[in-house]
Amino acid sequence: MNKITGLIAATFAAYREDGTINLDIIPSLVDKMINDGLSGVFICGTNGEGPNLTIEERMAIAEAYVKAANKRILVLVHVGHSSIAECRKLAAHAEKIGADAISSVAAFYFKPTSVSNLVNSMAQIASAAPNTPFYYYSIPTLTGVGMDMISFLELAENAIPNLAGIKYTASTLHEYQACLNYRNGKFDILFGYDEMLLPALAVGAKGAIGSTYTFAAPLYIKVMKMYEDGLNEEAAAVHMNAVNMVRELVKFPPIPAQRALMKMEGFDLGKCRLPLEPLSDKDADSFRSALEGIGFFKVVKEALQCHE
Amino acid sequence: MNKITGLIAATFAAYREDGTINLDIIPSLVDKMINDGLSGVFICGTNGEGPNLTIEERMAIAEAYVKAANKRILVLVHVGHSSIAECRKLAAHAEKIGADAISSVAAFYFKPTSVSNLVNSMAQIASAAPNTPFYYYSIPTLTGVGMDMISFLELAENAIPNLAGIKYTASTLHEYQACLNYRNGKFDILFGYDEMLLPALAVGAKGAIGSTYTFAAPLYIKVMKMYEDGLNEEAAAVHMNAVNMVRELVKFPPIPAQRALMKMEGFDLGKCRLPLEPLSDKDADSFRSALEGIGFFKVVKEALQCHE
Amino acid sequence: MNKITGLIAATFAAYREDGTINLDIIPSLVDKMINDGLSGVFICGTNGEGPNLTIEERMAIAEAYVKAANKRILVLVHVGHSSIAECRKLAAHAEKIGADAISSVAAFYFKPTSVSNLVNSMAQIASAAPNTPFYYYSIPTLTGVGMDMISFLELAENAIPNLAGIKYTASTLHEYQACLNYRNGKFDILFGYDEMLLPALAVGAKGAIGSTYTFAAPLYIKVMKMYEDGLNEEAAAVHMNAVNMVRELVKFPPIPAQRALMKMEGFDLGKCRLPLEPLSDKDADSFRSALEGIGFFKVVKEALQCHE
Amino acid sequence: MNKITGLIAATFAAYREDGTINLDIIPSLVDKMINDGLSGVFICGTNGEGPNLTIEERMAIAEAYVKAANKRILVLVHVGHSSIAECRKLAAHAEKIGADAISSVAAFYFKPTSVSNLVNSMAQIASAAPNTPFYYYSIPTLTGVGMDMISFLELAENAIPNLAGIKYTASTLHEYQACLNYRNGKFDILFGYDEMLLPALAVGAKGAIGSTYTFAAPLYIKVMKMYEDGLNEEAAAVHMNAVNMVRELVKFPPIPAQRALMKMEGFDLGKCRLPLEPLSDKDADSFRSALEGIGFFKVVKEALQCHE
Repeated sequence: MNKITGLIAATFAAYREDGTINLDIIPSLVDKMINDGLSGVFICGTNGEGPNLTIEERMAIAEAYVKAANKRILVLVHVGHSSIAECRKLAAHAEKIGADAISSVAAFYFKPTSVSNLVNSMAQIASAAPNTPFYYYSIPTLTGVGMDMISFLELAENAIPNLAGIKYTASTLHEYQACLNYRNGKFDILFGYDEMLLPALAVGAKGAIGSTYTFAAPLYIKVMKMYEDGLNEEAAAVHMNAVNMVRELVKFPPIPAQRALMKMEGFDLGKCRLPLEPLSDKDADSFRSALEGIGFFKVVKEALQCHE
Repeated sequence: MNKITGLIAATFAAYREDGTINLDIIPSLVDKMINDGLSGVFICGTNGEGPNLTIEERMAIAEAYVKAANKRILVLVHVGHSSIAECRKLAAHAEKIGADAISSVAAFYFKPTSVSNLVNSMAQIASAAPNTPFYYYSIPTLTGVGMDMISFLELAENAIPNLAGIKYTASTLHEYQACLNYRNGKFDILFGYDEMLLPALAVGAKGAIGSTYTFAAPLYIKVMKMYEDGLNEEAAAVHMNAVNMVRELVKFPPIPAQRALMKMEGFDLGKCRLPLEPLSDKDADSFRSALEGIGFFKVVKEALQCHE
Repeated sequence: MNKITGLIAATFAAYREDGTINLDIIPSLVDKMINDGLSGVFICGTNGEGPNLTIEERMAIAEAYVKAANKRILVLVHVGHSSIAECRKLAAHAEKIGADAISSVAAFYFKPTSVSNLVNSMAQIASAAPNTPFYYYSIPTLTGVGMDMISFLELAENAIPNLAGIKYTASTLHEYQACLNYRNGKFDILFGYDEMLLPALAVGAKGAIGSTYTFAAPLYIKVMKMYEDGLNEEAAAVHMNAVNMVRELVKFPPIPAQRALMKMEGFDLGKCRLPLEPLSDKDADSFRSALEGIGFFKVVKEALQCHE
Repeated sequence: MNKITGLIAATFAAYREDGTINLDIIPSLVDKMINDGLSGVFICGTNGEGPNLTIEERMAIAEAYVKAANKRILVLVHVGHSSIAECRKLAAHAEKIGADAISSVAAFYFKPTSVSNLVNSMAQIASAAPNTPFYYYSIPTLTGVGMDMISFLELAENAIPNLAGIKYTASTLHEYQACLNYRNGKFDILFGYDEMLLPALAVGAKGAIGSTYTFAAPLYIKVMKMYEDGLNEEAAAVHMNAVNMVRELVKFPPIPAQRALMKMEGFDLGKCRLPLEPLSDKDADSFRSALEGIGFFKVVKEALQCHE
């Protein structure tokens, strides 16, 4: 697989009224992603509530996305789990159904205690899908595992034959830049901190994975285009819309708030699972008003028309 | 179920050479526990590597312990998992096979953000085994979830009909004392910080769950007996042996070190699973020498003979 | 100096209306301490707002306490500061005016990065008062410096000739017990976590320093007496009053709440300094009601009459 | 004062053999800064070991810098201290001697507990130098005080009449961008995370304060120039040199390592103060070799010649 360019949406889980997973909504979500200009979807990750789902549910969701995508858009399957034995089941399944790549967070109950321990753990997972590109999903604020990523690449490039790169979700752009430049850009380092996309572009980012790309991709694509065209100041001005949106978002629990936003966009994803709790109607209204107040919906719509 | 008195051993997982779980060793482990004077076993918890195992493996281990115990000793089954849906499967299974109690840590990927959110999450788990006593397993240093436990009891006593109490693994003995005294001792608050057992007795502890009881129970039982008999200073002197042992233990990764200690006692539990890594032979030797240096094995042996 | 037995009150700073320090109240505070049965006072520490005061103010307060105590009660002077050069000034001054002991927290802006670095830092402070006993003040939750205290003693016993011991403010009673037993009790390890005094007694504590001893010493002295007399359960019951008081206390910012409590006892200490902010009148009222609700004032009064 | 553009060097403390401060070296340091193209110096901050110095030493250093600068370059004086009373002395002194601006970290022993508490604390400091621009120095990783900076600006713009802006030392560039854009750029938000300077430029940074500008300013100035000229990729390539240098730097304690680097450049700053400890000769040699290995000295030299 070549390096990924453009944006990958970290999609959300969808549930029915009775709490079971909703697979029927997936085709329309995929079509929206394609229409929005995305390069792929990242499923069953943090925003996809992977750790809240059973193994069987995760497999069913992966199958539904691969089928709906039908090679029109990349499908990256997150296989992270506290148990590496379960990770391996998910990895092997993803390979079998033809996922474009797999990815995993570090184990998060027992946590890797050194870079080599982390690499050993990831190698055990990646080897269950030996013909599928593997991305280590680094997200220190959630997992509490914050290792030096250059040291990771140094050890992992031998230990993990199918290592494609890192899904890098942290604000430390100096380390991110170092990873991008490691061995003249040998690995694909996808940026995962949406509201810092523009600064990441400045140090060389070409691809990114994030939850807000699920509903605001046109805005970010416009930023990328402007920056590529040397319109640095204009890109910063447009990027400020994303910053403003995220500032409103984080006044609420972020995943429930984004699910509420998806509903505003016409995609009813149902209630998230405990310990996540859906936004109250009052909070959802107040969130919508805030988004309208900063002109969010209008900006995204115009950006979409612009690139269509 | 009445309140638990005495000690519950948080047992370790056992694996074969090929990495699969070893169920055959369980009967001999149970017999050792009974001989050592324990009141019960706590299985598939932190030390039992619950989060490293698959659901099917956890169920098989639970069945093996219930069968081996055969009501001679209590069996508490840990059902914690990042996914509450999986917790519920484990809880229902534990009830079906006749476990004496179930227990769960807070979800540990998405973490409860308030006491009520924690209670809602625990209630959803406990309700899958409505006829089995439920203990919330509080271990803030591992899960990162540190809520006020009195507030937890206040909300949980209504929301969780089968709430028996808390497995309290923290050094904050003032809060522990408050929990013990909540509503004149309505709940069973089992202490989970082995090397602080004596101070916990001073504020009223009657029962405790911990990993070092798997191999050092006679020592602790002697402390409890002495303290009960008003031999406060003598109890402190004996307790110091446990403190010394734990100080040696934590010079190594604690679970692998304890597994090495079990091997010294004749129980070969096999290699732990990544991200845990077994002690090297060199480290195991150095650990054994340190334990001999502080007279650990001798003290435990004498304590055992004493109460036999 | 022999080891300290009994309780040392970590006193609070006192200010006038205009914000300057109030030295006039000190003699009456000292008399109260003596009447309450305390063994000494610990001044300009955390509760004494040492880090909020200028060097000159700290010296003036030290002089006033030494004079008021007039050898009837021990005076321990906290000399901790972010600058070791300033610590040394305070230490030399304390020795000159005849303080009974000095104590210092670890530097708290730049933080010691190893035990030897910590010992080197403390040695530089202690050597400025070479004829005065020195206590290292360990309080990891405030300073963020949490080193192994046995390792500290091992290095410090040679590097700090006037090392008397540790003011140990942490809930880790196993380490505390190990320190008490280090070299057969060579050092004086004073316990600093008031609401865990009884459990500390169980592992051998004989002396303690804490802020709540400023206003609740008789209660704690009663606990110590009962425990010494082998009345373990009765001691636990009385100790529960301290736990209840502290649970009410920490519903508010602790230092301002305790200052409000001192005012209820007739000692108006004035407004604390920013970033500390005094309790509002409303909060002070609600705190008083809560204390009355748990019978706090009555219990302390009875305990005082009892030992008088 | 207008907004600051360009780079401000956060200079290091200088000591004599006997441990006293070295004021004689200051004129030559200032001349170097001017020659390197800097806009100003920031003194007695973190790298300047402000918290390790006495009040008198800090005042002497401030006077020496103001005199040496002689209005050729800006002098910003850091007045942060655990005691606000001491901060005020330093602030009043800085104003009296004609410093161009003052700045303060949050109190760092007792820590502000809310944005309004932080603003109240900073207002008390700033009001001691009412005619001098005040910059709040936000550095959450060192002080542990991490508040929302937009909320800070909202409250502080009324409470602190001489508020000029923020010295923003954090990697959260989305918040940084929001601060830059607050009220159409009302405040001067100086960026403080050197190895992320280029990404900060992408969101609009015009001025920055940092320690590595003391010895590597020409490199960063070249990055700024290229970025301004629309040479985005070239700027990223040059910026990578700074990232590489910092990656070598942080393999050692950062302040001692930078002091060693200054010595390589011909400025012997003497030994830092405890708890900081100087690099060993061996470490200094290995650091120098690493810097040579990445071509650091050559790159800086060429960049200097380029802009001269």
